[in-house]
This record gives sequence, structure tokens and C-alpha cells, in this order.
Amino acid sequence: MIELTLIGIGTGNPDHVTFQGAQAIRNADLILIPRKGKNKSDLSGLREDIITRVTDTPPRIAYFDIPERRSDDGYLRGVDAWHDAIALRWQDAMAAHPEARQVALLIWGDPSLYDSSLRIAARLTPQPPTRVIPGITALQALTAAHAIPINAIGAPYTVTTGRRIRDEGWPQTAGTVAVMLDAECSFQHLEMADFDIWWGAYVGMEEEILIQGPLADVAAKILKTRADARASHGWIMDIYVLAKRAG
Amino acid sequence: MIELTLIGIGTGNPDHVTFQGAQAIRNADLILIPRKGKNKSDLSGLREDIITRVTDTPPRIAYFDIPERRSDDGYLRGVDAWHDAIALRWQDAMAAHPEARQVALLIWGDPSLYDSSLRIAARLTPQPPTRVIPGITALQALTAAHAIPINAIGAPYTVTTGRRIRDEGWPQTAGTVAVMLDAECSFQHLEMADFDIWWGAYVGMEEEILIQGPLADVAAKILKTRADARASHGWIMDIYVLAKRAG
Repeated sequence: MIELTLIGIGTGNPDHVTFQGAQAIRNADLILIPRKGKNKSDLSGLREDIITRVTDTPPRIAYFDIPERRSDDGYLRGVDAWHDAIALRWQDAMAAHPEARQVALLIWGDPSLYDSSLRIAARLTPQPPTRVIPGITALQALTAAHAIPINAIGAPYTVTTGRRIRDEGWPQTAGTVAVMLDAECSFQHLEMADFDIWWGAYVGMEEEILIQGPLADVAAKILKTRADARASHGWIMDIYVLAKRAG
Repeated sequence: MIELTLIGIGTGNPDHVTFQGAQAIRNADLILIPRKGKNKSDLSGLREDIITRVTDTPPRIAYFDIPERRSDDGYLRGVDAWHDAIALRWQDAMAAHPEARQVALLIWGDPSLYDSSLRIAARLTPQPPTRVIPGITALQALTAAHAIPINAIGAPYTVTTGRRIRDEGWPQTAGTVAVMLDAECSFQHLEMADFDIWWGAYVGMEEEILIQGPLADVAAKILKTRADARASHGWIMDIYVLAKRAG
């Protein structure tokens, strides 16, 4: 009976919302909103702001708490159990609004990119038809802010995580590399003289900070800027692109 | 004196436009629009439609012809000369409207992804400050239409071209691979039994066609569907994601 829509809302700039996303918000009977997770307190009102901006008659909102993720049983198992737990929260929130047919979630960035919503949706019983509305990703907000293409002409690019850069080093690729989900500036594990970096924190938001240059020259500045920003905001989201230096 | 804005408009669905993109269109004094290239005749009116949709007082429009790309001197040299030639067309179009200060282009997809606008803008003299507004890419439209994430949990993904798949085979990666700019179904050069595919043509548009399944099972269907669609529309844009099959 329920139809689920996962709406990509971009990365903190309410103007990242697409006309399609706005229409999907207006079509919803019920929107599920996570209560602020730790380290992301600045984002807590963003989803409500977006909703009231696109409609004078907002749909019902059901809040759910994001459970803690445990990692004592290994990373992937921890993620798996965490998705199970979130799916139960969604189910409970929907059960409290049995009249709702069109249920939506507002997803940071795009539901297809380093996001768990589709995997959580797949755990719901009965399984609702699920529709995805694409949104601007942090990677796009980063490349737009620096006004750079992500790829060289006809060349590939790879998107990976800080964990993989730290554990596996530079991926075997002829192209550029974008790094997401990096809590510890994993570029320090690379041969820094070989790379240029385009780094950004809070990309797309008012707080946006951008640094770019030869990695060996700007790494210390990024480390300090990141630590200071995190301390002052209480949270940080950052992302960067690396390219091998010519010659 | 001129400021240039490259506005990502998504992939043919006018509802892909973001609020930020719409505002940038309204702010423009002059919008440069390419005259229909060969094979893309269905798109000729899309940019005008988007402009009239977001403003009752459209900015001036200057059309320019896209020159032919030559490849008799090698691929990269051909692209280089082509970008030079397009930059001259932009320059001529702007020179015909010397009063315009805010000049914009509406870019299919996102100006950062397999798009030449930033490289063409860098050839303008004098060099105008250039701003990028991110837009929904064909890759996002594809994953949204199939309701799939592009990456496995914590895993990387690589975006590459049909040419590279044909010439170099499967990229060395632990992740999924998205293939763009593939005019010849280059997945046929892979060991097809090893992969699943999520394919789409005209993604995001009314004409959207989606096929997914084990590559060995659906490859023939994709080849025929693609050839038929291209013949009937006169052009085609397609894109796909490949993942190694488990086991």
C-alpha cells in the first residue's frame, strides 16, 4: 500500500533541491526525518527548512532516532546490523501513521552515492515500491566550488573512501581520484609530492572552506583548517579530489 | 567585465533543474545556446523550454554553431582544436552583445563530468571569472531510474569511457564501473559471463529505456534495443553500470 520515495536534497544548500525533488516533497503524505545524529547538529533544521520552502501545506513529519552503529563485530557486520535497526525505526514511524500512502525521506546528497537508504528500504516488510529522485552530491558541490572537471579528457576517475586510501594506497587507475568518508585525512598515507589536491569542507553550505594546491604544500594547512573547523562547528564533512602531478 | 556561469541542467528532464540553476538563469543577461549538433535533434528545444519555464522575462539568447570535430590528427589533438574553435564561437557570440555582463551556458548534465565547457571557458580572452552550478548527471539519472546505489558498502567505483573498456578491458578496481560516452556497446569486449549490467538510454527523459540483468543474458537485447531506438529517434545517449557477479 505504501510507496516510498528517496529524495536527494543536495549537500546543505537548500538551492541544490531540484524541481523534481520539490514536487516529490509536495506529493508526500508523510516524511521521515532522522533526529540529529552526533556531530551533525548544524544539519538538524535543514530538512524542515527545505520542506517549508517548497510547500505551504507541509506533509506530516515523523521523526526517528538513528541508532548507534557498533563495530565490535567487524565493519561490514556492524553496518549490516545498523541498517536492520534503522529499518525497524522507519517501520515504527510509518506504523504510527497508517493513513500515509506516499512516504518520503530527504536524503543528503544523492541516494545512490555512499548512502544506505536503498539498502534500508530493501529491509522493509512488506517491501514497498521505492522511487529515487537524484540530488546534487558532495563530489559535484566540490568540483563546482573549485570550478574543475572531475576527469581529464576521455580519462576515468575513481571514487573511494579514506579507509581504502589508508589501507590500500593509491588505486590502480589512469585517472583522478575522489575521496569521501575520510575522517582522518588519509592523503597523508600517500607519497604527497606526487599529487595535487582540491579539498573542501561543508561544500555547498555557507560555511564552505576550500583549499587547493600541490598536496605536499597544502597538507599541513588542510590538517589544521580541518581540526579548527571541526572544533568550532562540532562536526565536519569534507571531501577531496587528487590528481597525479604532471612530470 | 564579463562573468561566466556554467549551469548544469540535468539530463533532459526539465525537472532536474535545481533552484540554484533556475536563479542563475534569471540572473543572466545573455545565454549562449549551441545550435543542434548532429544526432541530437530532439534536444534542440530543451534549453529554451527550461529558460521560459523559470522566468517570464527571459534573458537574451545568442546561438552559436558547434564546429565539426576532426580526428585526422589524433583524438586528443582533435579535441584540443575543437575546443579552440568553440571558444572562438563563444567569443563571437558575446561580442555581438557587448552590453551583457552575466553570460551563462546551460550544460547538459553537470559541467564537471565529461564536459568541455570549463576547458573552453579557459580559452577565452580576457579570461572571465567562471562559476559552476552543479546539475544532475546521466549517471545519477541512471542509478535513480534503476533504484540502485552506485557503490557497494564502503567500496569504490570507477567511471570510464567505452573507448577505455574496448582498449584496456575491465579497470583494475575492487568496485563497480560506470561507462559513459560509449557509441559501440563496448561491454562486448569483456568476459560477459562475469558481470551484471544496469543499462539505460535517454535516462531521465520521457523516452527512457532501461534494461538490467546478467550481462550475458541481456547483451543481445541491449544491442538490438539500442540500434532500434537510435534508428527511430535519430540519436541516442546511453550509459551503464557494470558489477562483477558474485561467486
